[in-house]
Amino acid sequence: MRTAFYISDGTAITSEVFGHALLSLFPVEFNHITIPFVETAEQAEKVNSKIAKTFKETGERPLVFYTIVNLDVREIISNSVGINYNFLDQFVAPLEIVLGIPAKPEKHRTHSIHEKTYDIRIEAVNYALANDDGANLDNYGEADIILVGVSRSGKTPTSLYLALQYGIKAANYPFTEEDMGDMLKLPAKLRHYKNKLFGLTIAPERLHQIRSERRANSRYASMRQCRMELREVENLYRREFIPFLNSTKFSVEEISAKILAETGLQRKKY
Amino acid sequence: MRTAFYISDGTAITSEVFGHALLSLFPVEFNHITIPFVETAEQAEKVNSKIAKTFKETGERPLVFYTIVNLDVREIISNSVGINYNFLDQFVAPLEIVLGIPAKPEKHRTHSIHEKTYDIRIEAVNYALANDDGANLDNYGEADIILVGVSRSGKTPTSLYLALQYGIKAANYPFTEEDMGDMLKLPAKLRHYKNKLFGLTIAPERLHQIRSERRANSRYASMRQCRMELREVENLYRREFIPFLNSTKFSVEEISAKILAETGLQRKKY
Repeated sequence: MRTAFYISDGTAITSEVFGHALLSLFPVEFNHITIPFVETAEQAEKVNSKIAKTFKETGERPLVFYTIVNLDVREIISNSVGINYNFLDQFVAPLEIVLGIPAKPEKHRTHSIHEKTYDIRIEAVNYALANDDGANLDNYGEADIILVGVSRSGKTPTSLYLALQYGIKAANYPFTEEDMGDMLKLPAKLRHYKNKLFGLTIAPERLHQIRSERRANSRYASMRQCRMELREVENLYRREFIPFLNSTKFSVEEISAKILAETGLQRKKY
Repeated sequence: MRTAFYISDGTAITSEVFGHALLSLFPVEFNHITIPFVETAEQAEKVNSKIAKTFKETGERPLVFYTIVNLDVREIISNSVGINYNFLDQFVAPLEIVLGIPAKPEKHRTHSIHEKTYDIRIEAVNYALANDDGANLDNYGEADIILVGVSRSGKTPTSLYLALQYGIKAANYPFTEEDMGDMLKLPAKLRHYKNKLFGLTIAPERLHQIRSERRANSRYASMRQCRMELREVENLYRREFIPFLNSTKFSVEEISAKILAETGLQRKKY
């Protein structure tokens, strides 16, 4: 199996995302190795030895994706025996011409605590945790968005992702049996924040499967119950004109991107 | 201000990460606009109109970072009036030669629910939530790692990030007053899992600041208390040979990357 290295004097997240996107275009498996925080010439030499060793062991030149600000370190890695992709660099000179100013790389500029939105993101995570699962209706005034839906339809992971990645304060409220009664009505406490509501729904089969992993053979997990709850919430979304999406086939990344695109919600971090 | 567009028929996360890393090399501000899920020729034409409108309004050609699998859609965007960066594409042909196989793009291959590790990540998020703040010591056997430290030293956001991004099951345990006594000893229930422990510490000034935002002028937030607690945990880490890091100057991304590099913990997702 071919090995792909992701090297950086920062977190190496940029290298990973780029390399992963590129390699995912090919229908083969790779062995992935990330080496972050390569900050000295000595560490860089060690990395090169590791790349050389991998080459020797596998007989295939490793792919090396790297973004490195430190010039000495970069120079060393660029001489590794791997196939080197310094993928950001070749865009820098043309962009300097377009923008009319020289690049001014600062170490750890991305994915670092020095981003001015960092504290906002951590605050949003704390908010999501404190306002998970309808825990704290008093704080809804602060919410950027309130995700609603039945239990296990994807609200919690989505609210955490929105917080961590975008600094968005997402509360979430689960519709429960008590809310249902004869017909699910919008709880009074939510009506006040109606413009912040965003609904999630999911295929009954998938909900049944997810709930069964938690409580097998319970009424909670039964197809009949899942169908009933989902019918009720979808009717509610339509009746009240609450925007919603079906999360069945989407990851938290996709759900979050769709919510942002659909609501026009301003993210705090880019 | 120059506008940067991030366009994709998927989430556009790859475009954002690449574009953001590139633009962060320049000491100017940009106006960022992400348009995900551009899946039809009609939608692509609308995007091009938006790019043209931005050009007209600002007088500067927008930068357009895109990754698009659908050929028709890609063709349209590549003809926008912006300065177009189809940054993945130019690496594909050379990589085909290196690997000896043709690329086989599948739509939504990255950041999608079809990644085989998707369910593992969601399970890890649920695990992190259920085992946050020492809530559930019974489940420590399942943990990949147990973060320890005083209250507000960064354990919770880090455990959520490890779960969401890497599918790692991270529990976390806060050392409390009761654990301290005359001298902080390793709680018996943690000793059994000693090989899973990873300590966080933080500068007393920063801890004081964070705690003060929660409970101003409390003993909990006082410099004296922060200093005492941090001295105790750092002594404990050293005495018990628990690996640890000081989170003061690091983001959750950086803390997580450092933990992975230092422990050799296997991530479930690349």
